[in-house]
Amino acid sequence: MPALYFAKAEYKARLGATKLEMQRLGLDTLILSDPANIFYLTGFDAWAFYAPLFVVVSCNEDEPIWIGRFMDAVSARDTTYLLEQNIRAYPDSFVQSSTSHPVQPTSEILRERSLDKGNIGVEMGAYYYTARIHAEFVNHLPNARFQDAELLVNRVRLVKSAAEQAYMRQAGHIVDAAMAAAVERCAPGVRECDVVAEIYKAQISGSLEAGGVYTTSPPHFCAGERVRTPHGLWTDQPLIKNRPLNIEIAGSRLHYHCPISRTVFLGTPPDSYRRLAEAVVEGLNTTMDSIRPGMAAEGVELVWRRSIAKHGFEKEARLGYSIGLGFPPTWGERTASLRPGDKTVLQPGMAFHCMSGLWLEDTGIAITQSFLVTDDGNEPLTQFERQLIAKS
Amino acid sequence: MPALYFAKAEYKARLGATKLEMQRLGLDTLILSDPANIFYLTGFDAWAFYAPLFVVVSCNEDEPIWIGRFMDAVSARDTTYLLEQNIRAYPDSFVQSSTSHPVQPTSEILRERSLDKGNIGVEMGAYYYTARIHAEFVNHLPNARFQDAELLVNRVRLVKSAAEQAYMRQAGHIVDAAMAAAVERCAPGVRECDVVAEIYKAQISGSLEAGGVYTTSPPHFCAGERVRTPHGLWTDQPLIKNRPLNIEIAGSRLHYHCPISRTVFLGTPPDSYRRLAEAVVEGLNTTMDSIRPGMAAEGVELVWRRSIAKHGFEKEARLGYSIGLGFPPTWGERTASLRPGDKTVLQPGMAFHCMSGLWLEDTGIAITQSFLVTDDGNEPLTQFERQLIAKS
Repeated sequence: MPALYFAKAEYKARLGATKLEMQRLGLDTLILSDPANIFYLTGFDAWAFYAPLFVVVSCNEDEPIWIGRFMDAVSARDTTYLLEQNIRAYPDSFVQSSTSHPVQPTSEILRERSLDKGNIGVEMGAYYYTARIHAEFVNHLPNARFQDAELLVNRVRLVKSAAEQAYMRQAGHIVDAAMAAAVERCAPGVRECDVVAEIYKAQISGSLEAGGVYTTSPPHFCAGERVRTPHGLWTDQPLIKNRPLNIEIAGSRLHYHCPISRTVFLGTPPDSYRRLAEAVVEGLNTTMDSIRPGMAAEGVELVWRRSIAKHGFEKEARLGYSIGLGFPPTWGERTASLRPGDKTVLQPGMAFHCMSGLWLEDTGIAITQSFLVTDDGNEPLTQFERQLIAKS
Repeated sequence: MPALYFAKAEYKARLGATKLEMQRLGLDTLILSDPANIFYLTGFDAWAFYAPLFVVVSCNEDEPIWIGRFMDAVSARDTTYLLEQNIRAYPDSFVQSSTSHPVQPTSEILRERSLDKGNIGVEMGAYYYTARIHAEFVNHLPNARFQDAELLVNRVRLVKSAAEQAYMRQAGHIVDAAMAAAVERCAPGVRECDVVAEIYKAQISGSLEAGGVYTTSPPHFCAGERVRTPHGLWTDQPLIKNRPLNIEIAGSRLHYHCPISRTVFLGTPPDSYRRLAEAVVEGLNTTMDSIRPGMAAEGVELVWRRSIAKHGFEKEARLGYSIGLGFPPTWGERTASLRPGDKTVLQPGMAFHCMSGLWLEDTGIAITQSFLVTDDGNEPLTQFERQLIAKS
């Protein structure tokens, strides 16, 4: 028997919510490619999405159908609740072949199950739904009408269940420990890669209660001049005294993510930099104090924007984004954003990363907070102090 | 000045080879989305491909043009040799927006540079070239004819330069150390996640000479029953005595990968399992002894197939694949495979992972070897002994 991460009833509820949304949009069938959506509906957990991998939901079938590379079907048996008849594989000869494509046998399976016609939803903008895959489906399923159903399941994922919230809290504990390990290790003269090695170790070991798994993205570790870059890579050069260092990382508990960013200053920060930090911390604290259900996502951003404007700053990039389940390359759920124009109404069980950082012409700083929306406010998912960290 | 990983002349040679291939295929312009191809031609190195990111090569322009999210343009300035005029960004409001798409401003940049017409090659099956991106290009560039140019640059990458080979050797040293750390730490009663934590630490710390960066894929760590699954995820449960454990990992030096798999048996392996290991090791050694330039990729597989057949085994999956540069989700280059039908002729400077593993109904084993093809044979990229590792 597979060891499911959630009760069977929870998977059933997720599938039910997905089917309701399909009916609202007039879809007979939904072909999913986003690994997070596949995981969400079936539990499937293996590194298999480098080759075409699909989960097909039909309004007329009790269970989704998993379709993937033959060698990964055994993982479907190990990690999902699906019946054997709903785990289908294509032969290895189709993998990265120049003469054939996995969508051909996939289409045959759909035909066999009478799912080759009607309105079929596909995730047009999902990372692993390539232009080639779509062209092959259009070619092999001439009786279907394709509709864009990107983010359909992502939107179902917006409000987290109690079990999901528990995993996110564990992810918060993990990332608090990983950030502490980074701060502990970093010092002038220590190689950047050796600090990042400790971050990884802490992310994966997790706590005694709950181990970690890989995060969707590597640590963003930007030291010295590179604090200007939000998504830079570490080097194997030593850290230098009297320079700032931005660290953005997440903890991942069974693919539920909790991110955090902190800036460490390796020495005594100059006054100008300290004032920058104070503006960011004040903006973050003011924003966090304001967040409660019923607020619009854009309203959260407005609180922040007004706060930092008092100090003469502005931030072009969005203030934050919905978090939860994630597979590479991003822990953002790609639905709600904390930015002007986003009217999403905050509800209990939603989760966000408030990405309160500023990247200026010649420097950068980031002191951020992940949180859950609760019945009457919000619950921070990490406990790390909201401060610029000076370490000499 | 950016610190380039390769000499400017090497980037020029790569671009020249790409343009030759474009001319052969009748392409005026090439739009690249594969992060490895973007890195290969420009040096661009930041975690930016979660949002639409392109490098555009024109036969009429000296340099490629980088187009990405505005906050990542600073990384383009930091890591590429491109002139400022060839680093172009779209505003943050286009990122994960429900009302607009980054391909719109990208198309405007192409029009401004007169690259909006003629034959445009796109990477139809590249992971981050989504169906949505392609549909937007077709819509916004009505004067262009689109052609599939997937793997065009991947094929240019097949033969590695001396500098690339040097990075791959460093990646080999890193992964030898990471596998040694795993073997050292694993024992009955130790949590799987704590072993994987040591693997990550060793992968990233690297050696005193060369630090590591993230690999395209997490460790595949399949213990006990899970040895049947090739791409499974570790748990936070303790390892159990008298069970096998498959570990597949890579070292990554500046995104050049060297993978390896080994099986550890936590106790004294039963005779049947030892015979399985002997068949695999004999097959691997026989195959490695045969590999030299001039051989076809399918010929390598034939040597292996005949060797294991003598012991009554067969392997459906391909025996191996081309390696080198990689970004998530795979360190395979997606070009040559060691399997029937692949006529690629081995040339000095090509590199492969010989994935000599067997996954049977109820068990699995993997003892593999990455290698470079040399002038008169091959050079193993790792030194880890080719044996089943018994550890009690």
